[in-house]
Amino acid sequence: MKARSIPDTARQGWACLMLLLGLTTTNCLAQQHAEDSLMIRKLFDNALTAGRIGPDLRYLTSRIGPRMSGSDNAQKAVEWGRLKMQEINPDSVYLQEVMVPHWVRGNKEKSFFTRSNRKREVMQVCALGGSVGTNGRLTARVVEVRSWAELAALKDEQVRGKFVFFNRAMDPREIETFNAYLGAVDQRSKGAIEASKRGAVGALVRSLTLPIDTVPHTGAMGYDPKVVKIPAAALSTKSANLLSESLRYDPDLLYSLTMDCRQLPDVKSYNVIGEIKGAVYPGEFITVGGHIDTWDLSEGASDDGTGFVQTLEVLRLIKTSGKRPERSIRAILYMNEEAGADGAIAYARQARLSAETHLAVLESDAGGFTPRGFRIEGSPDIHAIISGWKPLLAPYKIDDIHSGHRGVDLAPMKGLAKALISLDCDDQRLFDIHHSALDTYDRVNIREVELGAASMAVLISLISKYGL
Amino acid sequence: MKARSIPDTARQGWACLMLLLGLTTTNCLAQQHAEDSLMIRKLFDNALTAGRIGPDLRYLTSRIGPRMSGSDNAQKAVEWGRLKMQEINPDSVYLQEVMVPHWVRGNKEKSFFTRSNRKREVMQVCALGGSVGTNGRLTARVVEVRSWAELAALKDEQVRGKFVFFNRAMDPREIETFNAYLGAVDQRSKGAIEASKRGAVGALVRSLTLPIDTVPHTGAMGYDPKVVKIPAAALSTKSANLLSESLRYDPDLLYSLTMDCRQLPDVKSYNVIGEIKGAVYPGEFITVGGHIDTWDLSEGASDDGTGFVQTLEVLRLIKTSGKRPERSIRAILYMNEEAGADGAIAYARQARLSAETHLAVLESDAGGFTPRGFRIEGSPDIHAIISGWKPLLAPYKIDDIHSGHRGVDLAPMKGLAKALISLDCDDQRLFDIHHSALDTYDRVNIREVELGAASMAVLISLISKYGL
Repeated sequence: MKARSIPDTARQGWACLMLLLGLTTTNCLAQQHAEDSLMIRKLFDNALTAGRIGPDLRYLTSRIGPRMSGSDNAQKAVEWGRLKMQEINPDSVYLQEVMVPHWVRGNKEKSFFTRSNRKREVMQVCALGGSVGTNGRLTARVVEVRSWAELAALKDEQVRGKFVFFNRAMDPREIETFNAYLGAVDQRSKGAIEASKRGAVGALVRSLTLPIDTVPHTGAMGYDPKVVKIPAAALSTKSANLLSESLRYDPDLLYSLTMDCRQLPDVKSYNVIGEIKGAVYPGEFITVGGHIDTWDLSEGASDDGTGFVQTLEVLRLIKTSGKRPERSIRAILYMNEEAGADGAIAYARQARLSAETHLAVLESDAGGFTPRGFRIEGSPDIHAIISGWKPLLAPYKIDDIHSGHRGVDLAPMKGLAKALISLDCDDQRLFDIHHSALDTYDRVNIREVELGAASMAVLISLISKYGL
Repeated sequence: MKARSIPDTARQGWACLMLLLGLTTTNCLAQQHAEDSLMIRKLFDNALTAGRIGPDLRYLTSRIGPRMSGSDNAQKAVEWGRLKMQEINPDSVYLQEVMVPHWVRGNKEKSFFTRSNRKREVMQVCALGGSVGTNGRLTARVVEVRSWAELAALKDEQVRGKFVFFNRAMDPREIETFNAYLGAVDQRSKGAIEASKRGAVGALVRSLTLPIDTVPHTGAMGYDPKVVKIPAAALSTKSANLLSESLRYDPDLLYSLTMDCRQLPDVKSYNVIGEIKGAVYPGEFITVGGHIDTWDLSEGASDDGTGFVQTLEVLRLIKTSGKRPERSIRAILYMNEEAGADGAIAYARQARLSAETHLAVLESDAGGFTPRGFRIEGSPDIHAIISGWKPLLAPYKIDDIHSGHRGVDLAPMKGLAKALISLDCDDQRLFDIHHSALDTYDRVNIREVELGAASMAVLISLISKYGL
């Protein structure tokens, strides 16, 4: 009995010790959770009561306006962005040089088609970004396709000398409109190339938007150096529908397009960077960014005015948090996301040259709507770490954590940063306004943008504290 | 050995049988899940591609417009609602009579205050719904309070003969704006009563909205039959701020209010009800509703034009699903949610009289923004059943299941229905437009409303299939 009682007592002792350790760990975790919760609450309170999002976005959109890469306005936005960063007073603010393309729309586009009964129908169109002009009025027949297979199935004489009309609509059944966009954007990006290969004289592309309305949406298109450059224009969804219906009983109707757009020589421009040095690991960086440049059809309030002012706001939130972050934080306003991501490429080149350690790069370029969480490209370990923070994020409804980032300006950092992270937002309204004249200040909800800025400041603070 | 081998074999046999049963159950569950997934996908596809939400809401807002209880427009909306339900061709469509109050605003309100230097400041105001008028111009001093405690702490002579100015703002730190609303709406609902008890001549209430702008927001206010009725008006947040600042250095400034509003005799009106009989349990009901009536300051697109057209759409989605539901479905357009929920009370009275079994009553009255899930008042068992459907709801981002419904028109069914369920939506933009002139068609996103209708049709279909 006695002989057995000793190990029993020992076992009890161990159990006691394990229990105590367990309790201590639990206490410690609970305290850490409480501390983090408080930190998060303070960041949100700061953003929702003392933020600069509203006045900043109003200034950017109404006093500066459209900010096409290479334009005077883009340079004004660089200077204003630098000034705003300096007002926040981080450890340093500097410009990073980058050469960018300078495409101009020229005179407003004109377009119509003439029915066989000679009735003329005016089309709402805009040149796609980067397109060559038409060198006067270009008139030709039209052939409509909805897939690459349909184009491939056409005989050469059915395409040669015509406009190819790419009329595949975004699929409204997609719950995330971004997926509907991804299912149609190839028409815009390579329509002119594929049409030209078959001998077409121009490409007409259905605007990438879900509503049926009169507003054309622009966006980047591409050329292949080995293929003749032909002009490419976007048609409003209403114009696209009218053209499609008309072609059914009038397949030989004549379509006319006049576009004055052209590429000017590249222009020297800048990323704007503000930096707060880390207190513990100053050599480890976490970045947050949005892009300065916009298309020219609107003031670019949502795309990416919201990301621009959120980037400033994250810097301000961290600077005014009362505590220097453990890791170094960089706020980056990127130049030319829309037509080549040159700013992001320049940043990544410099990061590679200087062999800096990047834990995470974040971008907000999803319209600035109510945030829902984050999209992360990183190892399973990193997903596990960030998913472990869900209980902290849930009270703010930002705990949807998904794979695969969506930041064009993040892509050049692949392989250089441990995690590429984009802010994920409700996207139901995004493509209604995206790249069109509808992307204006009054369609942005300032609170939603504030919530997004706070969300990014929270994730950055957690990464800064715990590492990745 | 042999003696033991028999039970072993028997055990193996049992194990085999259990495994088979398990597999069968698993297969059966997997098949059920697949069937439900397909049903849900079809409902969403139908709503997103073949729905009537857009044209219906446009007609309701532009061709009918504001629909105050008791007004001619409310009656027009009843008739149009009945017609639209008949077009869907359910088993029956009928009206349910209900007496409703008939309050009219009369001539537009006028309001200003005069500083001691005689400078006059015009205030943006509107009468609160149900208020008495001022019987000519009412001029008095103002005392500002932000809490009931502040009012209680005032001496009688500090209140008597004055306007009490209730200036507690909605708290922007609340992540759900609805919670910020709940934290301030008591000023609107009982401000006039509490001010009158202390001898005040009028109540001025800060508009229940977060932005600082020039738009007053109306809404229901209450009187106590034992307390003198004094007029009550809402001030835009900008006017409220100006008045508050001015009172600081000019506490004796004179405030003038002219309101022509009054109650007319009650009017006979109607709920509109459309019903599809259940194939298996026709005596068990699931209802879905929105309210017909609006305030008079706008066309009531969001509140509750969206709930109105979603109710029609849910009926259409279930009717066209190709399968009669197991339980009976009722679509209810309620009259007078805004000023007493008379329609909902009438419905509940009839349900009680006829001893009908109601499994669940659903309402959409949260603005029609992107749906996020459901708020449920019901037993823990019911929460467990509905939470068990989360994997089916998650692909549509409608799997946030919370306690406590938010439907004014649901409350009368408490104790009668097993579950009261309100559609939960993103609410960041709601109070910017709520009960004000800003609640217009162009601020509604049709896709968001379609998603909400599909969400309710899905939940109703699951409840209909599995019961509660």
